[in-house]
Amino acid sequence: MTFSAKNGKKIVIVGGVAGGASAAARARRLDEKSTITLIQSGPDVSYASCGMPYYIGHEIVDRSVMSVQTPESLRQRFNIDVIVNTRVFKIEPNHKLVKAKNELTGEESAYEYDELILALGAEPLEPPIPGIHHPSLFKLRTLQDMDHISSWIDDKNVKHCVVAGAGFVGLEMVEQLVKRNVKVTLVELADQILGPLDPEMAVVLQRELEKNGVEIILKDGIKEFIAKGDERSGTVVQLQSGRKLPIAEMTILGLGVRPDTAVAKDAGINVSSRGHIIVDDQLRTSIDHIWAVGDSVLVRNPILSREVDEYWAVTLAGPANRQGRMVPDIIYGKNRRYKGTYGASVIRIFGYIAACVGVNEKMLRSKNIPFSVVHVHPNQHAGYYPGAKSINLKLIFDPKDGHIFGGSAVGEDGVEKRIDIISTAIQGGMTVHDLADLELCYAPPVGSAKDPINIAGMAAQNEVDGLVKQIDWKELKELEEHPSKEVMVIDVRNPSEISKGKLIPNAINIPLNSLRERLNEIPHDKEIVVSCMSGQRSYYAYRILVENGYDKVRNLSGAYKTYQSTKVQNQQPSQ
Amino acid sequence: MTFSAKNGKKIVIVGGVAGGASAAARARRLDEKSTITLIQSGPDVSYASCGMPYYIGHEIVDRSVMSVQTPESLRQRFNIDVIVNTRVFKIEPNHKLVKAKNELTGEESAYEYDELILALGAEPLEPPIPGIHHPSLFKLRTLQDMDHISSWIDDKNVKHCVVAGAGFVGLEMVEQLVKRNVKVTLVELADQILGPLDPEMAVVLQRELEKNGVEIILKDGIKEFIAKGDERSGTVVQLQSGRKLPIAEMTILGLGVRPDTAVAKDAGINVSSRGHIIVDDQLRTSIDHIWAVGDSVLVRNPILSREVDEYWAVTLAGPANRQGRMVPDIIYGKNRRYKGTYGASVIRIFGYIAACVGVNEKMLRSKNIPFSVVHVHPNQHAGYYPGAKSINLKLIFDPKDGHIFGGSAVGEDGVEKRIDIISTAIQGGMTVHDLADLELCYAPPVGSAKDPINIAGMAAQNEVDGLVKQIDWKELKELEEHPSKEVMVIDVRNPSEISKGKLIPNAINIPLNSLRERLNEIPHDKEIVVSCMSGQRSYYAYRILVENGYDKVRNLSGAYKTYQSTKVQNQQPSQ
Repeated sequence: MTFSAKNGKKIVIVGGVAGGASAAARARRLDEKSTITLIQSGPDVSYASCGMPYYIGHEIVDRSVMSVQTPESLRQRFNIDVIVNTRVFKIEPNHKLVKAKNELTGEESAYEYDELILALGAEPLEPPIPGIHHPSLFKLRTLQDMDHISSWIDDKNVKHCVVAGAGFVGLEMVEQLVKRNVKVTLVELADQILGPLDPEMAVVLQRELEKNGVEIILKDGIKEFIAKGDERSGTVVQLQSGRKLPIAEMTILGLGVRPDTAVAKDAGINVSSRGHIIVDDQLRTSIDHIWAVGDSVLVRNPILSREVDEYWAVTLAGPANRQGRMVPDIIYGKNRRYKGTYGASVIRIFGYIAACVGVNEKMLRSKNIPFSVVHVHPNQHAGYYPGAKSINLKLIFDPKDGHIFGGSAVGEDGVEKRIDIISTAIQGGMTVHDLADLELCYAPPVGSAKDPINIAGMAAQNEVDGLVKQIDWKELKELEEHPSKEVMVIDVRNPSEISKGKLIPNAINIPLNSLRERLNEIPHDKEIVVSCMSGQRSYYAYRILVENGYDKVRNLSGAYKTYQSTKVQNQQPSQ
Repeated sequence: MTFSAKNGKKIVIVGGVAGGASAAARARRLDEKSTITLIQSGPDVSYASCGMPYYIGHEIVDRSVMSVQTPESLRQRFNIDVIVNTRVFKIEPNHKLVKAKNELTGEESAYEYDELILALGAEPLEPPIPGIHHPSLFKLRTLQDMDHISSWIDDKNVKHCVVAGAGFVGLEMVEQLVKRNVKVTLVELADQILGPLDPEMAVVLQRELEKNGVEIILKDGIKEFIAKGDERSGTVVQLQSGRKLPIAEMTILGLGVRPDTAVAKDAGINVSSRGHIIVDDQLRTSIDHIWAVGDSVLVRNPILSREVDEYWAVTLAGPANRQGRMVPDIIYGKNRRYKGTYGASVIRIFGYIAACVGVNEKMLRSKNIPFSVVHVHPNQHAGYYPGAKSINLKLIFDPKDGHIFGGSAVGEDGVEKRIDIISTAIQGGMTVHDLADLELCYAPPVGSAKDPINIAGMAAQNEVDGLVKQIDWKELKELEEHPSKEVMVIDVRNPSEISKGKLIPNAINIPLNSLRERLNEIPHDKEIVVSCMSGQRSYYAYRILVENGYDKVRNLSGAYKTYQSTKVQNQQPSQ
């Protein structure tokens, strides 16, 4: 038995959604005698936050399922004192006391604690843009927000909605609004949607949104929300570029979140510059007997913590739940450590799924960490079995030792499975060499003898082992903009595969199967870039060239499939 | 650069499907100057073995896709000398020579090698049963077998087919024959189908087969195939029990395989008692410069090799491919080790998928290795999102340290993903504690904040940590057969969930939410078993009881869902 110290503690938990509710239930399972008090600012506990867009979009129709637990069920099942509609406004560590106010009655109350668990969450950002408090603008944090948005669509006969911010919640809202037959304009300040993905991956989702009628405006911010007519009839969004959008009866603010930690900071708990609570590897704050979990906490980034510990803020339900479960374990005497958060995320947008884990190129570049990338496009199951669909899979790794920095994938099927496998591999300390050798389930309807994971691992392993040098789509584009007679691009596909305009500019076509006989056409003094459709045959070509004495060859990573996906915005994908 | 020694070796490869073809292609990529000769007994190389049932069942209609490579494409793309229709009948290690005979012309030839790679494969068993050579009986190893079976169904107007053997290939054939509108009787000597699964998992597939009209006969063998009428019009199968089956115009023999290694044994290469080639951890046979890969090799079992190395024979395409890729790496100077084969397998049977990895209870019991088991039944994605389907997930682990012995799962969706994750975790040396903490992708349509993997990991972790003691469905059945007044079974579901006959015999019902108030109904001197629907609420009940001083409590692993699945054969599942 690894647990100890069951002496009827007073546990107070502030916040009752993912992390807070998990902590409360786990504490009760470990000890029947403790007094467990859960204080929640709104009327609901343990509700299905991540499901809210789907209720708004009518995919979920039963309102009752949105509450995983109710205050009453938590009381009955776990014997927890659930105090709802009550906001903690003061923590007094010296007296081990929290003070709270009922937001409906105004009544104040105080709760003594032996151990205090803060699950304060994060609140949607509301930047100081003129008009941001217009009643047709909505944030989505609570079930009340959800109900409000859903009924607004009907009540105001919403035809056009602006979604500000192309993060996970923003994009889920876009998809669900389209399902409610609302015309959507998505406005994003960055030059791509969905920042956690690198741009050549995000563009696949962008096209899927556009295919479904969504207008996407990138690299533009909102300057003002201009009220029109009756103050409830919507706004005209004035963009920073000067452009004005057609009147929108509703706007969703998906501009990111900030930790809801003022009360913690006021109590003297250490927070980061952006307000996230600093915790140790047992989720203990800087003040004894106060713990913190969930979206408001700065967590370790285990992928970057190779020599020095690095931290980041990640708002995900899974890690919040597990953090919530871990704190009672530690309180009741078990020696647990929180290793960190890996950032495994997924989104479905119409017919596509995109998922990622770890850190992306942008983050590595900002930290000056050297990395390599492979792009591969294998099918989700055996190509000869009907219904095979290509997965656009990217792996980022350390070219020295094969350490995995991150993976991302976009496709129609089998996508999050591959990212879950990469996530598991990262958490198991595995490298790209292990991915190459990984044994996974295979039957023709559900996998491949060489799974996409193996293919990505082998491609990366080949680079780590020095069997191939890659050139990235970005580098090739630079070469195109500054053409050089010193570079020859060879596309080794069969001529029948290359329809008009589907060849990289200035590339010559030498099919792989005749490359050995046509080496005389390839000069030894030029830099050579080889490409094909997905990068496999061009790798074979690379090997043939290098083995025949060519020493300045590079393989285009992900080949034409990756290249074309980044080629022209708003263009239909070729496959 | 980790490779060396490119001096134009003579590489001879015997066998050209998964392992052999992979070896040939990798060898060429590493060295343009070597002579690579691939000798294959039949006319085809690199064909889609695993796809053959689906071609027979008309799911795959294009015959050409069954050949992933042709002899001609291997020659063109990889400059490999492909010798087809040729059987190697002698290996002469002293002369570094293999002798082969063209099976069409009878012509003999000899091939010198510097390195010889044996990918001999395995052939379907043909036990000495009277009538086994009847022309209506078929094995499935080659594309010619496949074509023969497919045309036989049409030509002989096959209405009834006996499938002998309920392994992976047998079951895939059953499914596909049903899709060809053939009535199928499946005969299996064991007391369950699909031996790699434990019986309570396999029974779910059994029901799915029966639901689709398949007659399944277990615990019975075939005594004789009795020819009827014209020798081509089929047989009556006489079973060992005395039962005679209706006439079957076709019989598929899926009775397992044996390694096709006579030529290796004759050459003095060490083989196991069952004929599998013994290799070291670099896939080197007992004779220098001879290597072996694929179905004919005895591989390390890394899961059981905790103190002493253990070996097993596994016939899977993925490991064969990776072994084939590894041998050339080693030949050309790279230091690689084959860690072993983990047995990750999957099958789709109509609407269900079953998958497993590692070792099962049967194997652990036969080796007297102590183990614990958890059964859980979580949904493949958030329960509140439409289309949630329960996954029947089993985890087998060491109760001392949480080492994972194996996992298996059956369900309609998201099944092989979870086994792939467990497989990755095993290969990364992770434990059930790591599964509990594993961070996986979550969005309502594709996962859960607590993924089924987390739920299984937490259940196992609770047992390793001493927070719960489990009772298995088998032990409970023994208790039922020998009822004791000393045992009280408490079902903590709500009364509304328990329809007639859906309560474990002699169980009393105390709903979880009123358990605390009704403790007075539960005597302290009895053994107590708690159950619910899937095992989660009964775990909560367990904790309440133990925390209230009950010291002889056990939680029914997998609760009523696992219990009922094993209850009565041929009964419809309750959910």
